[in-house]
Amino acid sequence: MRYFPTVCPRKNISAHEYTLRVRPRFHVPGVDATAARVELPEEEAEHLVRVLRLGVGDEVDVFDGRGGMWRAEIVDAGKRSAAIRALQPLDPAPELEVSITLVLSVLKGDKLDEVIRDAVMLGVAAIRPVIAERSEISAAAIVKSHRVQRWQRIAVASAKQCGRAVVPTVHDAAALSGYWDGPRAERVMCVEPSAAPTGVISVQLVPRSPAVEVMIGPEGGWSSSEVSTARDSGAILMSLGGRTLRADAVPIVALTALLTTWGELK
Amino acid sequence: MRYFPTVCPRKNISAHEYTLRVRPRFHVPGVDATAARVELPEEEAEHLVRVLRLGVGDEVDVFDGRGGMWRAEIVDAGKRSAAIRALQPLDPAPELEVSITLVLSVLKGDKLDEVIRDAVMLGVAAIRPVIAERSEISAAAIVKSHRVQRWQRIAVASAKQCGRAVVPTVHDAAALSGYWDGPRAERVMCVEPSAAPTGVISVQLVPRSPAVEVMIGPEGGWSSSEVSTARDSGAILMSLGGRTLRADAVPIVALTALLTTWGELK
Repeated sequence: MRYFPTVCPRKNISAHEYTLRVRPRFHVPGVDATAARVELPEEEAEHLVRVLRLGVGDEVDVFDGRGGMWRAEIVDAGKRSAAIRALQPLDPAPELEVSITLVLSVLKGDKLDEVIRDAVMLGVAAIRPVIAERSEISAAAIVKSHRVQRWQRIAVASAKQCGRAVVPTVHDAAALSGYWDGPRAERVMCVEPSAAPTGVISVQLVPRSPAVEVMIGPEGGWSSSEVSTARDSGAILMSLGGRTLRADAVPIVALTALLTTWGELK
Repeated sequence: MRYFPTVCPRKNISAHEYTLRVRPRFHVPGVDATAARVELPEEEAEHLVRVLRLGVGDEVDVFDGRGGMWRAEIVDAGKRSAAIRALQPLDPAPELEVSITLVLSVLKGDKLDEVIRDAVMLGVAAIRPVIAERSEISAAAIVKSHRVQRWQRIAVASAKQCGRAVVPTVHDAAALSGYWDGPRAERVMCVEPSAAPTGVISVQLVPRSPAVEVMIGPEGGWSSSEVSTARDSGAILMSLGGRTLRADAVPIVALTALLTTWGELK
């Protein structure tokens, strides 16, 4: 049996930190913590058996993606399968009190990969990729390259890494034009100050709501008609100031600034 | 003559945005804006001539790294040399009112590259790489791999990209133990809440000072003796909350949170 201790004397780090870094963590949707035996999904089982070479008796963490996390023991390990039994509930990383959906324009290449990783780390509840007027990619190209599935895997990996027991939903990519219909939470659109001469407020003034959709544009920014539509739909137009930020840095800056404004980095 | 227009009808973006993206920008330390002819540094001249294939009469932007930026005209171009003449002063991206020095523990591999790029984008005045107890690299290895020179080039490139006319100083890497001596600005050390059970305040409560040194630890965090030394030296111990952030994401999150707290994202 391989033993994963809960403190690491050599590195002199906290038990929590060490657990986060060392005891491997597996995503098991719908895990029943009272069952004597829970099968791991095939991909997770393969990682456990073939990559980490763990076996019966080893301890791991499992989380259900919806807020539950447990210390667990491996009770069965085959060539491509593994089963665990939950031992003890664990405290996952705290979730935000504000529920944030990131409405994220698709960027060029694989730039959205890191954005999604970081947004999950910062605690968003969901990610909705949208194709804006100036997004330089089509919905068909996104489907063909299986990007959404890739982003969903990245969301799981990032939740594992940062100790969240919740895996944010990554929705299918869709045209922004279809986004405006239907009832929604409070919308906050991040714009360049020059994009809308009036009615743009600085991030420190954005009011807190229980649920917020934060909209981030593509490399070329939102078009003026997209900004108008947002304004007409009641969205708050928010600026991050006069400096030019790289498009793939805007989401982490915008989220951090809003979390600071709302007292969520505590 | 190649002409760089100041508006881009096709992309429907602002003149400022277009200028930032399109008119090439060159770093010319000590440029004399009244001179009829200013030689570009060799590396910049090569980029102008060989990569961008610009020639006499083309317009570019030049900045001196200390706050001055001008529209300029190429007046001479050789095989590896080029000279310009300043035409008109330009408004660079606004600088922060708070002078921030980022005291940054060296991370593994090339992870600090993106950190330095983003810190320059967010407006820091200087970057001081330090080797902390848990930094997994030696001062000798840093010298051998010419990292500081690389980071200085990244600082120039990032200033170009984000429209700053100031290039932050990237100091030589040095052991943290030597950092504490001498008079300094206000110090703010970013710590995990568990690292110091008392006396840690959340980022929203960090007071604004005219000049601040923001200290960010390595992957393994600060050692307890480093935290004690910081506390004894009068540093503010600051937390970013209970979520686990990747070490290379902490600087951008910490800087953004402080800038928001201090009303600098306006």
